[in-house]
Amino acid sequence: MPGSSVTEKLISAHLVDGRMRPGEEIALQVDQTLTQDATGTLVVQELAALGLDRARTELSVQYVDHNLLQADERNAEDHRFLHSACRRFGLWYSKPGNGVSHPTHMQRFGVPGKTLIGSDSHTCAAGSLGMLAIGVGGLDVAMAIAGEPLRVRMPEVWGVRLAGRLRPWTSAKDVILEMLHRHGVSGGRNRIVEYHGPGLATLTAMDRHVIANMGAELGATTTVFPADDAVRRFLTAEGRADDFVEVSAEQDAEYDVDDEIDLSALEPLIAKPSSPGNVVPVRDVAGTPVGQVVVGSSANPGLRDFAVVAAMVAGRQTDPAVSFDVNPTSRQILADLTAMGATLDLVRAGARIHQAGCLGCIGMGQAPAVGSNSLRTFPRNFPGRSGTADDSVWLCSPETAAAAALTGQITDPRDLGADLGLEYPSPHLPERSSIGDDVFVPPLPAEEAVRVDLVRGPNISELPELDPLPDELRAPVLLKVGDDVSTDEISPAGARALPFRSNIPKLAEFTFTPIDPGYPERAGAPHAVVGGENYGQGSSREHAAIAPRTLGLRVVMAKSFARIHGQNLANFGVLPLEFADAADFDRVDQDDVLVFEKLHDALTTSAELTVHNDTKGEEYRLRHRLSPRQVQVVLAGGQIPLLADEWISQGR
Amino acid sequence: MPGSSVTEKLISAHLVDGRMRPGEEIALQVDQTLTQDATGTLVVQELAALGLDRARTELSVQYVDHNLLQADERNAEDHRFLHSACRRFGLWYSKPGNGVSHPTHMQRFGVPGKTLIGSDSHTCAAGSLGMLAIGVGGLDVAMAIAGEPLRVRMPEVWGVRLAGRLRPWTSAKDVILEMLHRHGVSGGRNRIVEYHGPGLATLTAMDRHVIANMGAELGATTTVFPADDAVRRFLTAEGRADDFVEVSAEQDAEYDVDDEIDLSALEPLIAKPSSPGNVVPVRDVAGTPVGQVVVGSSANPGLRDFAVVAAMVAGRQTDPAVSFDVNPTSRQILADLTAMGATLDLVRAGARIHQAGCLGCIGMGQAPAVGSNSLRTFPRNFPGRSGTADDSVWLCSPETAAAAALTGQITDPRDLGADLGLEYPSPHLPERSSIGDDVFVPPLPAEEAVRVDLVRGPNISELPELDPLPDELRAPVLLKVGDDVSTDEISPAGARALPFRSNIPKLAEFTFTPIDPGYPERAGAPHAVVGGENYGQGSSREHAAIAPRTLGLRVVMAKSFARIHGQNLANFGVLPLEFADAADFDRVDQDDVLVFEKLHDALTTSAELTVHNDTKGEEYRLRHRLSPRQVQVVLAGGQIPLLADEWISQGR
Repeated sequence: MPGSSVTEKLISAHLVDGRMRPGEEIALQVDQTLTQDATGTLVVQELAALGLDRARTELSVQYVDHNLLQADERNAEDHRFLHSACRRFGLWYSKPGNGVSHPTHMQRFGVPGKTLIGSDSHTCAAGSLGMLAIGVGGLDVAMAIAGEPLRVRMPEVWGVRLAGRLRPWTSAKDVILEMLHRHGVSGGRNRIVEYHGPGLATLTAMDRHVIANMGAELGATTTVFPADDAVRRFLTAEGRADDFVEVSAEQDAEYDVDDEIDLSALEPLIAKPSSPGNVVPVRDVAGTPVGQVVVGSSANPGLRDFAVVAAMVAGRQTDPAVSFDVNPTSRQILADLTAMGATLDLVRAGARIHQAGCLGCIGMGQAPAVGSNSLRTFPRNFPGRSGTADDSVWLCSPETAAAAALTGQITDPRDLGADLGLEYPSPHLPERSSIGDDVFVPPLPAEEAVRVDLVRGPNISELPELDPLPDELRAPVLLKVGDDVSTDEISPAGARALPFRSNIPKLAEFTFTPIDPGYPERAGAPHAVVGGENYGQGSSREHAAIAPRTLGLRVVMAKSFARIHGQNLANFGVLPLEFADAADFDRVDQDDVLVFEKLHDALTTSAELTVHNDTKGEEYRLRHRLSPRQVQVVLAGGQIPLLADEWISQGR
Repeated sequence: MPGSSVTEKLISAHLVDGRMRPGEEIALQVDQTLTQDATGTLVVQELAALGLDRARTELSVQYVDHNLLQADERNAEDHRFLHSACRRFGLWYSKPGNGVSHPTHMQRFGVPGKTLIGSDSHTCAAGSLGMLAIGVGGLDVAMAIAGEPLRVRMPEVWGVRLAGRLRPWTSAKDVILEMLHRHGVSGGRNRIVEYHGPGLATLTAMDRHVIANMGAELGATTTVFPADDAVRRFLTAEGRADDFVEVSAEQDAEYDVDDEIDLSALEPLIAKPSSPGNVVPVRDVAGTPVGQVVVGSSANPGLRDFAVVAAMVAGRQTDPAVSFDVNPTSRQILADLTAMGATLDLVRAGARIHQAGCLGCIGMGQAPAVGSNSLRTFPRNFPGRSGTADDSVWLCSPETAAAAALTGQITDPRDLGADLGLEYPSPHLPERSSIGDDVFVPPLPAEEAVRVDLVRGPNISELPELDPLPDELRAPVLLKVGDDVSTDEISPAGARALPFRSNIPKLAEFTFTPIDPGYPERAGAPHAVVGGENYGQGSSREHAAIAPRTLGLRVVMAKSFARIHGQNLANFGVLPLEFADAADFDRVDQDDVLVFEKLHDALTTSAELTVHNDTKGEEYRLRHRLSPRQVQVVLAGGQIPLLADEWISQGR
């Protein structure tokens, strides 16, 4: 039997239920959670609905990094609500301006060997420290805070051996861009990427954060690095040497899939618009005019990344036609950058220094002009994500970004040596970071916490109560849609709907409106929706389940479901059913009335059941892919009522 | 005959036409102009419509400081448009991030003894340097750039003698708050405030900027200080000692109105919600809880203001329930602040450091939660201006703001000595500012400029062509409104309409919609609007004239007009007429058809004319208050066609 990989060690140390065989469901003990504000307000509403008294994790941190523009009162009210929730439930609160959750968590709270889940897809970045860190839906985080294990299917482990050493003008971003170049944006699905090999020793912990973070863009479940000397040095610089625990693969570890990258063979790479998978060498697109350069985000968050940019532009003026935007990752990194003099270099060179946070990376400001190329050190460049419908966003390393800021066009940074006499900078970073934890608000003692009330602004609802699934259900088909309907169509984002993400009844008024503006008005009583293939693809937002549920949706019948949305439907008590015969899809019409009988028996005894179409006088065979636990969830009306019932019976 | 005041010296040195008697129209040579992006895009469209070849002022600077959030592509497209216009017309371009126009202009471009007009109401701040600086509508700026003099009514001169010296924990903001306490928000109407006396010597040039800037809140035409040793020191620190010219009042100067302030008698003051005139001593409201503190804006822009705040919070943590927002005034001030170590103090104390610009001062982000008190060093706290409809915004000095950030409640900063052991800080400011002009883009040489094309994004229109007023006009009354209709109701701001401020045809679709959503659809052909008293009060935006004009508005008949809007109507060729008998207002109804005959003769020969109500078979007497020049403007269809005609006849 081969030795254990880092992944296997982390999983086996937290395995509560199941076997570590790819594809089988496992349950994992969750040590830490993180939430950000855009998803966190719903998590808090879920905690309140669960009747949670106090967090049962070792550590849970609520960050505010997404909605920082505050164009009206709603953002600030969310921040107050989250602050009060941290006081009430025993969470750490990281206030606006403290910075982006992932690198901040790594610097202040990450501990090798621990598990972390977060309601943000880039939570995987903490794999850089030898943690098992997975991005999930908000309700999964709420349940973990309440002490429940995380249930996932065991992924394959994808070993990527690193050899050699990066050459000047290439950096960690080029490593993950190389992975995307080779494998595309779904190459990592149902896999955990584990980096190993002699090249590891040449990468700092923050370099590894860059690589682990964009594992999300590979579609991987997460990314894992060992906790070795690089991690020990990192934690020592953060004043947390005591938190170091070595986590390493055994010599004879084997992986389900193998790959290898020679770091010394990499050249500067760039992802063209509009996918992280559109990777080409920078030299192939050199000379393309650039109107905006943005440095920052969880994809290039480290002090080193900003310091290299600052050293490159120091004493020079950036191109007058370029908006050169710098998004400091965190209060800590801005402090370090300022103490070492790099902030001054950036300001003098013409940078716009923004508040610490996600900002343009999630389309909160910094939208470029149409027809203007924007180079960003961000992880994603999906069409329109910048806030500009016809955008041209490119993803690259800090070196490539700074080169474009200086020249006003896409430039292979290796050419700056010849053209501007620039040496590849190796900035001297401070041995100790300049600030610590005192900008965070720690959990209140339990006896104080119980007396805290949640501060709900006028726009913050309570979570609607969810009733059990009736045993007999008569449900008209209120909507029939085609293939590949996305969660953006079910519960739209955008400037009109987004401010209501903390107000489910109000948000529900936007349900399905991109497809059918009349749906919210027709809905209200129990009903069904019929869909085609890959129903609920795209964003993981659980709003796309709870919002229609609030309007009475009890059953979705589709040809197939996107994985996360199918889970989210079950989590909120909506029954996801597949046509056993896809041809039956064509026989059902909008306004047909469906009748389900003895649902309790049908679901608990079999993976198949029958529905009667009362309008057409027909019957269809349907199947479900729910685990026995998920069946109980749907019958109870959702995870929250089920857990609340269980806790009452346990006397919790 | 008494000696000249500074005001009289400045006016007489630039007088092109008229006599310096209060109330009489004078014409002034304009040396410098400034525009900001929110009003500048329309100015550029006006320059293009005028067919301007090259700016005729000594210096014109286009700043980008208002619309910096870039929630979609329109802001960035405006910035590109303005950059191209600067290249085309020979203007300086100050790109996003360079900072707020008024203090930036003072530091880099202001020259004692010169005149400056700007399309921003706080342009008056440059009075701190001994300039005559007036905020006006965009078309006035466009005409000045084209070489035309500024026409205004000669104001009274209001001499305010300053004695004594400010005591610790009070600063310049308390001086202007004292003026607002005494005189309210319209105490300065039709006046120029001129400060003099022995107390002047204790105020730096930037202190005077604080006082001059908020002269706008007194309703004053402008504020004037002498150019004395304080100004010489200021310009020397800016590396511009050669620009200094002494401008002082003669010993025996007399003023139309006299007032006196003993600086040593002032205590910390604060303007309560929701008017700059609601001033009370800070101690009267001490203990009020605070959720947000914002430092910055043109009202407290100086390095000293930020340095005092930084010194107060250095080594401490601000209250966890307070969002402590710092808006650096400009790239230069952020650089100075960073070089002296104060930025680091602010970051460590928990500040959110934002990009340089106006930001929350003009409601661009930083909106507070409802029910949460926000203390700001800003000039204005009109209801809802923060972006939050039911806001509670207070205006105060940097000292009072920092005290609240530390304690989480309104706190008389004098109490911090006893409570926190804080000494009043007197930070050491650098003798020379750390950056110069190299972040500005200078005008192109004329021979290059003529080859530049304006870069119009998809959302930037050309100015509609304006045809002459017909001699015979048959105009239905498309809308009848009551008293005090504001320009916000004529051409609304807000998130839906504002993005179209560079696109007049699109913006026109919002005209009058807050009052009557059907108006834009009914309009299109020549028509009239009937209004009550004080028609067009509020914001000076000229969009409220050009937008309805684009839809066919040719005549407004009202009981009376707000001053600026009446001028703006004439500027864009709309005839503003007052009922000679206010009772006739009640006789006209919406949809009545009005007939005007021989308008050319009627307007040029008399201040009165008659209109025939064809629907009712009645006649009404009307009068106008147009100068002979303004009559020519209206007959030509507006300033732009008139000037274009004149220039053609002059062979320009």
